[in-house]
Amino acid sequence: MEINPIAYIHTDFPAKFGIPRQAGIVPELTGTITFLPQYSQPEAVRGLTGFSHIWILWDFSLEHHENYNLTVRPPRLGGKESVGVFASRSPFRPNSIGLSSVRLTDIEYTEKGPVLHVSGVDMVDGTPVYDIKPYIPYDDCHPEAKGGYTDEITWEALDVSDPEDLIEKTGLSCLQKQALMKVLSQDPRSRFDSRSDGSRRYGFFFADYDVRFTVTGINLTITEIVRRIQ
Amino acid sequence: MEINPIAYIHTDFPAKFGIPRQAGIVPELTGTITFLPQYSQPEAVRGLTGFSHIWILWDFSLEHHENYNLTVRPPRLGGKESVGVFASRSPFRPNSIGLSSVRLTDIEYTEKGPVLHVSGVDMVDGTPVYDIKPYIPYDDCHPEAKGGYTDEITWEALDVSDPEDLIEKTGLSCLQKQALMKVLSQDPRSRFDSRSDGSRRYGFFFADYDVRFTVTGINLTITEIVRRIQ
Repeated sequence: MEINPIAYIHTDFPAKFGIPRQAGIVPELTGTITFLPQYSQPEAVRGLTGFSHIWILWDFSLEHHENYNLTVRPPRLGGKESVGVFASRSPFRPNSIGLSSVRLTDIEYTEKGPVLHVSGVDMVDGTPVYDIKPYIPYDDCHPEAKGGYTDEITWEALDVSDPEDLIEKTGLSCLQKQALMKVLSQDPRSRFDSRSDGSRRYGFFFADYDVRFTVTGINLTITEIVRRIQ
Repeated sequence: MEINPIAYIHTDFPAKFGIPRQAGIVPELTGTITFLPQYSQPEAVRGLTGFSHIWILWDFSLEHHENYNLTVRPPRLGGKESVGVFASRSPFRPNSIGLSSVRLTDIEYTEKGPVLHVSGVDMVDGTPVYDIKPYIPYDDCHPEAKGGYTDEITWEALDVSDPEDLIEKTGLSCLQKQALMKVLSQDPRSRFDSRSDGSRRYGFFFADYDVRFTVTGINLTITEIVRRIQ
């Protein structure tokens, strides 16, 4: 079947590095969804305001791979254990469709059509969206569900310090600053290439900035925040 | 993007009529998922046993339409009110992908590969499946979520009577009998074409049977169950 984008999502992640591994991990991370012209009519989202959450079916556009494997090593398991691709949410899968539930915070009606404001995103800026569906608690929420190996994972948040008040000196909004702190605390390093002896400088792009840091044990220190040349 | 089936789901609904409008409404409705040869290896589902629920991304194969509308009339609203296609789970949408969470009851390892046993299905027999993802409660379950117009809907179950004990006389399994009773009580009639004065005979296919009934008020009476010629 041929599927085509109906919308694009815009987020503060110009590149993959730093993006939380699942939707909702950093609720402060916001995004906006703009529809393609043929869907960009207020009636296409009529009735959506009453829903607090939506599903986004999106394109793992950074990860189109012909040569996926039947097993993957989820970052949640430290990259050490392998599980079946259908037992994971890995982007490396036969059909590159991501599934994320995000909070719908607002619907803005602009001249170019409705814009959905969402939070808790985990996509790179410009990701194609194939479908938006309302989150129906009765059907979609299973509080009794067992989450397999994901139930056993405890996130150890890093202790983020910003000795030079670099975040405060940026032009980021208050919410973006909070989001950035949380992204850092969630350890944005690749599980496959991380050293915690402070010897290595890591970096990722967030909104208009290049954020750099080091990690010593569980202490993350922001060393530099540079405005990117657009 | 081109997407291709990775599996097929087998259910007791040879045709669309009678299928519950969402996954999980009739938990007794079971199905089996068999993978295509290239994915039909035990390692493709390694680690899935610990999950109680899975997501199925599937093909609204009965509903491939070039000419969908930007608004739909959900059966849940009695077919009277129209909402935006992106505010509904309607099969008539730009990209014909269905999203259902079902309970994973067992993984059977056969010579032809793993078979997933699921319950709470809402697909027609033979539906192509594009992806299986584990249901991760931490990410996917939002107990506080507001379900918009779906929150206000109260299902009025029909009172099912089977005066001639026709269900008992079938060769259906105990679980299938329970499922059939519940499918009937959920009112399998089309919202667009239902009369409740007992004058009309309705029918649908369930497993190997053709089930016929009438409805008077909230009373559904089974009038005939005939074995279909395969």
